[in-house]
Amino acid sequence: MPQAIKQAFPQRISDVQKKFPSYQVDGILFSHISNIRYLSGFTGSDGVLILSADTAWLLVDGRYTTQAAAEVQTISVVQYQNKIQGIEKAVKELGLRKIGFEASFVNVEMYNDLTRSLKKAKLVPLGNELRLLRACKDKHEIAVMKKAAAISSAAVAALAGEIQPGWTEQETALQLEMTARRAGAEQVAFETIVASGKHAALPHAQPTNRKIRNGDFVVIDFGVQYQGYCSDETCTFAIGELTGDQKNAYRSVLRAHNEAIASIKAGRAAADVDALVRRVLGKKYSRYFVHGTGHGVGLEVHEAPRLAPNSQDVLKAGMVVTVEPGLYYPDRWGIRIEDTVFVKENSCEIITKMKKDIIIIE
Amino acid sequence: MPQAIKQAFPQRISDVQKKFPSYQVDGILFSHISNIRYLSGFTGSDGVLILSADTAWLLVDGRYTTQAAAEVQTISVVQYQNKIQGIEKAVKELGLRKIGFEASFVNVEMYNDLTRSLKKAKLVPLGNELRLLRACKDKHEIAVMKKAAAISSAAVAALAGEIQPGWTEQETALQLEMTARRAGAEQVAFETIVASGKHAALPHAQPTNRKIRNGDFVVIDFGVQYQGYCSDETCTFAIGELTGDQKNAYRSVLRAHNEAIASIKAGRAAADVDALVRRVLGKKYSRYFVHGTGHGVGLEVHEAPRLAPNSQDVLKAGMVVTVEPGLYYPDRWGIRIEDTVFVKENSCEIITKMKKDIIIIE
Repeated sequence: MPQAIKQAFPQRISDVQKKFPSYQVDGILFSHISNIRYLSGFTGSDGVLILSADTAWLLVDGRYTTQAAAEVQTISVVQYQNKIQGIEKAVKELGLRKIGFEASFVNVEMYNDLTRSLKKAKLVPLGNELRLLRACKDKHEIAVMKKAAAISSAAVAALAGEIQPGWTEQETALQLEMTARRAGAEQVAFETIVASGKHAALPHAQPTNRKIRNGDFVVIDFGVQYQGYCSDETCTFAIGELTGDQKNAYRSVLRAHNEAIASIKAGRAAADVDALVRRVLGKKYSRYFVHGTGHGVGLEVHEAPRLAPNSQDVLKAGMVVTVEPGLYYPDRWGIRIEDTVFVKENSCEIITKMKKDIIIIE
Repeated sequence: MPQAIKQAFPQRISDVQKKFPSYQVDGILFSHISNIRYLSGFTGSDGVLILSADTAWLLVDGRYTTQAAAEVQTISVVQYQNKIQGIEKAVKELGLRKIGFEASFVNVEMYNDLTRSLKKAKLVPLGNELRLLRACKDKHEIAVMKKAAAISSAAVAALAGEIQPGWTEQETALQLEMTARRAGAEQVAFETIVASGKHAALPHAQPTNRKIRNGDFVVIDFGVQYQGYCSDETCTFAIGELTGDQKNAYRSVLRAHNEAIASIKAGRAAADVDALVRRVLGKKYSRYFVHGTGHGVGLEVHEAPRLAPNSQDVLKAGMVVTVEPGLYYPDRWGIRIEDTVFVKENSCEIITKMKKDIIIIE
């Protein structure tokens, strides 16, 4: 890992610690694993990160003691047998009295166990305070996310030259994933969607053994992880000749997608981007657009902010978000066009690489 | 889907409804997606299942309306724009007053939102009551899990004939996954572990570009999903000649593994299986066994029960659990041997297929 990236972790922790007074806490207990990775560099699947005003402890079970010690730098690694007891002990030794926690990631059972265990310390739910913790990416994160996007886009580009009528959705998904893994993807960022014909009308379809055939739209929603960071892109291939209705629908989605991206810059309300998409789709199409316009991407493929009708989020420079309008005609066909963009002060940069003009597979 | 499997869903719902009096609830709100799939057959990634005493409603957002209607049978599908408001409306229309919820899956933020929203209805946390909901598998589930295990074991068996010194851990993981996917695996059940040399001392290592070489143990922990159900198996390959210490350690882990499996039957305390493993490993080895002996497997790769020192679980017929003792010598090498077994009245059946005698790759 380059030194500059290693230095990011203490800085991130320090940025959180500076906010303790405004959160009215003297410590924060992080249990959401993506937040722990973001703040500490620990890549395991379970653990607890406790910050006091001037120190950081990473609590892990025996599976992760050696790995954690190798991965984290200026953080003390403590092994626990029982997570609640481990937290209790750490809170006591650190002398914490008002402990913030991630209200949207601690479940009611753990909260009740902690309340019973931490008799003298008060638990302070932090919700909106932490929601955008990872939303603005630094230049190292952007570089890694561009690499992830380059790998998955290249796999889709290769697929466009190979796919033929007769391939099943499952074969197509496998082909994509193999190409991406050979090019360095750690794993897929989410279950690959290859949805053809009427399956394309299901926004989150799982690949089946249906054979792709002429006249199909094939929605290909694909992303990978690279150094833990996700990519997310959707292309809709047209197999052979389309009807006039299908062509018009595709053009409308593409126009909505392009206008939304052209409108993105720091300071813009996320809900306004969503509203613009629905306005461009117009009365004819917008009722077939059954999900939000986009979401943040980073260590998780879905993270804050949200680009949706009821979102309160405002875009900021450094955020990385998707723009993914689609149309879904139940039992007929569907279209989705998605890019991931990096928000800048006065515009945005598209980091996914496939051109979104209609791709016709002959 | 065979009719017999479709009929399982109403039966499972009815089994939960019968317990309402003992839980002191007149409804239950399920939000954990694996529980929702288990009870309804819905395979989407987000939604809420609300049961009253005599009916079931599946609440989903617009991405899943069409899919949910196709997947669930005797359940009403209701689309929401906002999850909390959707729940509020359903609870009102169903006239629920005491609503159970999954205390270990509802986060504090959602709980607070629900409490504010459901003014007249009381929320009742259900923890231990629901913990073993999916633990005992029926014959259809066992059949599907055997198929998942057959796919992943066959991929490991094929790998044993191909792997050679010089392969990287990443290449090895990719090879395994591709073999399994071609054989019908939907996806991997968890991030594949291929950990060689000193990496094998990290129980949850991620594959790196380290090249496998003579003298290595290579821990291969692999599982796939088939019809949503997971498999989980670990083999430790020996590359070339082992030292006497390594051979003795392997034999000790294998003995602990075999004796634990021989002891498994309905009525046995899970903690006793774990204690037996530690006893067989003895003073010399047991301190290098840094995790629990096993866990339930099903729609999730880690689910109840737990086979660990402090577990209160008792094994029952129909449970499917792993047995996975291991030894981890930091910065040197590691060994893990894991099978998945199906608990019966007087014994257990091993459903993973690889023999666990030492596999030497020449």
